[in-house]
Amino acid sequence: MSEAVEALVPAEGWGVLHLFFRLTGDRRETVDLAEAGALVEAFVAEQPYQAHWSATLGSRADIGLMLIGPDIVRLQRFHRDLLATELGARLAEVPELGFFSLTELAEYTPRGDEPRLVAMRVARLHPVLPTRRLIAFYPMSKRRVGSDNWYELPFDERLTLMEGHGRIGRTYAGRVLQLITGSTGLSDWEWGVTLLADDPKVFKDIVYEMRFDTVSSRYGEFGPFSVGLAAPFADALALAGVRAG
Amino acid sequence: MSEAVEALVPAEGWGVLHLFFRLTGDRRETVDLAEAGALVEAFVAEQPYQAHWSATLGSRADIGLMLIGPDIVRLQRFHRDLLATELGARLAEVPELGFFSLTELAEYTPRGDEPRLVAMRVARLHPVLPTRRLIAFYPMSKRRVGSDNWYELPFDERLTLMEGHGRIGRTYAGRVLQLITGSTGLSDWEWGVTLLADDPKVFKDIVYEMRFDTVSSRYGEFGPFSVGLAAPFADALALAGVRAG
Amino acid sequence: MSEAVEALVPAEGWGVLHLFFRLTGDRRETVDLAEAGALVEAFVAEQPYQAHWSATLGSRADIGLMLIGPDIVRLQRFHRDLLATELGARLAEVPELGFFSLTELAEYTPRGDEPRLVAMRVARLHPVLPTRRLIAFYPMSKRRVGSDNWYELPFDERLTLMEGHGRIGRTYAGRVLQLITGSTGLSDWEWGVTLLADDPKVFKDIVYEMRFDTVSSRYGEFGPFSVGLAAPFADALALAGVRAG
Amino acid sequence: MSEAVEALVPAEGWGVLHLFFRLTGDRRETVDLAEAGALVEAFVAEQPYQAHWSATLGSRADIGLMLIGPDIVRLQRFHRDLLATELGARLAEVPELGFFSLTELAEYTPRGDEPRLVAMRVARLHPVLPTRRLIAFYPMSKRRVGSDNWYELPFDERLTLMEGHGRIGRTYAGRVLQLITGSTGLSDWEWGVTLLADDPKVFKDIVYEMRFDTVSSRYGEFGPFSVGLAAPFADALALAGVRAG
Amino acid sequence: MSEAVEALVPAEGWGVLHLFFRLTGDRRETVDLAEAGALVEAFVAEQPYQAHWSATLGSRADIGLMLIGPDIVRLQRFHRDLLATELGARLAEVPELGFFSLTELAEYTPRGDEPRLVAMRVARLHPVLPTRRLIAFYPMSKRRVGSDNWYELPFDERLTLMEGHGRIGRTYAGRVLQLITGSTGLSDWEWGVTLLADDPKVFKDIVYEMRFDTVSSRYGEFGPFSVGLAAPFADALALAGVRAG
Repeated sequence: MSEAVEALVPAEGWGVLHLFFRLTGDRRETVDLAEAGALVEAFVAEQPYQAHWSATLGSRADIGLMLIGPDIVRLQRFHRDLLATELGARLAEVPELGFFSLTELAEYTPRGDEPRLVAMRVARLHPVLPTRRLIAFYPMSKRRVGSDNWYELPFDERLTLMEGHGRIGRTYAGRVLQLITGSTGLSDWEWGVTLLADDPKVFKDIVYEMRFDTVSSRYGEFGPFSVGLAAPFADALALAGVRAG
Repeated sequence: MSEAVEALVPAEGWGVLHLFFRLTGDRRETVDLAEAGALVEAFVAEQPYQAHWSATLGSRADIGLMLIGPDIVRLQRFHRDLLATELGARLAEVPELGFFSLTELAEYTPRGDEPRLVAMRVARLHPVLPTRRLIAFYPMSKRRVGSDNWYELPFDERLTLMEGHGRIGRTYAGRVLQLITGSTGLSDWEWGVTLLADDPKVFKDIVYEMRFDTVSSRYGEFGPFSVGLAAPFADALALAGVRAG
Repeated sequence: MSEAVEALVPAEGWGVLHLFFRLTGDRRETVDLAEAGALVEAFVAEQPYQAHWSATLGSRADIGLMLIGPDIVRLQRFHRDLLATELGARLAEVPELGFFSLTELAEYTPRGDEPRLVAMRVARLHPVLPTRRLIAFYPMSKRRVGSDNWYELPFDERLTLMEGHGRIGRTYAGRVLQLITGSTGLSDWEWGVTLLADDPKVFKDIVYEMRFDTVSSRYGEFGPFSVGLAAPFADALALAGVRAG
Repeated sequence: MSEAVEALVPAEGWGVLHLFFRLTGDRRETVDLAEAGALVEAFVAEQPYQAHWSATLGSRADIGLMLIGPDIVRLQRFHRDLLATELGARLAEVPELGFFSLTELAEYTPRGDEPRLVAMRVARLHPVLPTRRLIAFYPMSKRRVGSDNWYELPFDERLTLMEGHGRIGRTYAGRVLQLITGSTGLSDWEWGVTLLADDPKVFKDIVYEMRFDTVSSRYGEFGPFSVGLAAPFADALALAGVRAG
Repeated sequence: MSEAVEALVPAEGWGVLHLFFRLTGDRRETVDLAEAGALVEAFVAEQPYQAHWSATLGSRADIGLMLIGPDIVRLQRFHRDLLATELGARLAEVPELGFFSLTELAEYTPRGDEPRLVAMRVARLHPVLPTRRLIAFYPMSKRRVGSDNWYELPFDERLTLMEGHGRIGRTYAGRVLQLITGSTGLSDWEWGVTLLADDPKVFKDIVYEMRFDTVSSRYGEFGPFSVGLAAPFADALALAGVRAG
């Protein structure tokens, strides 16, 4: 296969692909995971490339996969190669959940030199996601409806609102890890929100509490929510119904 | 199959999966229910795990299944294993109706020690659903539109409104059992409402009466409604068109 | 097949199922209608059970079927058994058009003893639909948007508005028969409207005229509209493209 | 096949079916058009029945077909018979574009005896569409939202607005032919708009100019737009990818 | 195949087809690209016809194809012929992303004789797209909601707003190339926006910055966004998962 296309690294930020798959075919038949497993190993060995697998809860999808890395051509190649394996032949994409975004420093991210702020910026721009039991994802946009128009607010008002919003988030430090990636111009929604936690109640608590904050109550529009049981490749697939053999 | 993934019990509340299936293949062919039946028996034998089956009325789905239990990994494993049976090979999920939520104590739940209140809290957090002829389900959210923005109301006003709403609900005590589970941050809608009754008219009456209450009229947004004939596993499947053999 | 599930008759009103099917497979192949025909005959012989067949105009569905009867288990069994015939193996449900509702006396139905009113109530609660050339169906809800919120109006105002609406309807007496069934809490829309007439222009005229009435103009939300050529079982199927043989 | 169902001619106006098809199967295989061609010839020989074929531009459909004629049973029979040919076995309907409507005299149509007005009324009620290179179609409704509620306006205001709208339309006389058919109570949208022209820019110009007119800017809601290359049966199919053989 | 249909060139502007495909079948099987490749070569040899291929990022589609050229019959024929190749047999259209539009001079385009303005008009009407690493596409409309109604604004106000909008766009000159094509009356959205750049961050930056401009914040409605890795025919297909062989 031609590999004539060169690497493509954004001027700032890494590429992020949220992919969701439905398992097709008869689930009583086994799937040889060797080729897919080798692809995954090779991909994550190229640090900082990451592949986060999960078994999606509910009926909307079976398998979740979050890919992170600097070169979006590399992300695309992994995506393509995965679908060309024996595992891939059993996967159908769920297009209404898939999402392409870039890590970014938000407009409101404090730019100071304190170690806490530097670490926050590194975590946003070059995230290395830790291992947690659960991964949740939802896209969102800021509202532009009548008098609830985020984009008509002056910067100072938006900054003050976002700082209050961030303060709520920080009260969940240690219990939930939140990664916000930017997708304006790239996907239908303006941001993707990835949450990691060990307890599903924490997802419910943080999103519920934030919904009373003006940033969400008046200005938040939310897309489809999904939650998956995060696990290493083989475990996540087993939990999702793939019979390795 | 690897079972390396450990149990995952929320800090509070049980996991709840509402699943809906369409029966595929030729309905004149029989299905061996032995393996699926054994799975169901083993699952519900692990009290307090529950599996509530129903034959969905209308065209939207054939079979409804509501799973309840403390460990969401156990719920996922049952869901996965069911789809890998001969019955499962004939089921197609209806993703637009599926729903993942957690039982919860609402923000407005009275916290007193009176037996009635203690019982109500137990029934919400650790529900053991009784046998009724019918099961209905719909998801809902609170509205955030212009001047009808629930999340901009002060707590006291929301509490007063919810107390009035609850009073209407209580006039249906004995005729309809209502379980509200929380899904903010977990599903597209903020709550799931499961109703049990012996008469479909009661579903219509309670939801219609409540629609005039401010909590619904100004602040309620409702997702897809479904109603099913509840019955034990084999009866529900037979009623839904599965020919056991 | 187990028939362990007992009859289920609502405390008031009959069950109504609006079903729509797409004809699948090669239309040049014939279908043996004997089994399905016998099921239909047996069903309607159990008066007051009714099955109204139609060939749906346009691309949205091929066949319409409206089932009416007191016991909703009986309706479900007929629906299930029909799909297990040779005809049923060629039918695919159109879930976005299917609808479950109950006949009901509207909140605004006059309760007097005059024969006209008694007859009207019987016709709503226990309808025996006459034979007309065409059947139309659409679901609807009352609006709850900003200042156009039906459920925030006092009863007297709603009653006055509905009486005016009814007066328009009565000017079409003899030309169109209208059956409104209730579905709040049962389906996504609050009511189903079934119209019978011998001329499609009458459907257009009555709905258009009513659209200027406040009940519709400010408070009506309408779901998908369908129109079918009503005919006995075999004629409707032939008209829809089923080649009996 | 039973042909027991009698003709059904509306009291006023002709039936109109807009149908759209996707071509299925392998496009490298040929299709025998003889049977379908004979059906079409017989249909249009029964004047004033008309069948207007087109190759739809873009991805939404491959083939467009507009059927016009007095008896809606005849239209349904042609539709049914077409799908039972070898060509029909390769066609899949596109239900979101299909549309059933009736020709009608609009409420605002001038009723005078001048030849121009008589001709206009004939053209609306009993249209014989000329041959143009392109056919466009879109459904529309009048808005009923907040203070932009067409159905709350008095007749005189609506008449004045529509007369202004019509004046814009007349500046395009000769370049675009417009047929508006009524579908309130028959389809999800209240009217269908069919445009014929020899230049696609004219469709863009007329719809764009009218969008600034109050009838559209404040009161117009528009459904899916499609444009097709109009041609005789065999040419349209060839252009759409059907290999006759 | 009959080629009886004559060329159809708009009075002003070229035809533009945005097509998106999903790759079907087993991705481990090779596809002979010879016939498709020859078609593409012949098409682009007929200057100014252009075919821009891309591998779409994410789950919504696999392959993007943008066709540009004067004769819309020629565009349709290329589209049709491509689907009749061995490659075409493996492609399924993604109708919700497909789009038909025409190049146009916007109402607000300055009409002066300065070389910069002449070049801008040529670039809009007769664009020859350069080679960039990425291609993005989204459709949009101007809002007509309550007091945010673009079509109710006087021309001068719209002109001033658009000039400000254009000034933001020009600060991205050299980093992003933007082609706006008109689709009012042709597609569901009023314009299509095609962006070319070498860095995905630039798509995010320009769309985000413009979202604060009144033209977008109050008057912009946006359809589905897609981003693809642009490459020559064979490279784009390889990157999208087509195994040439």
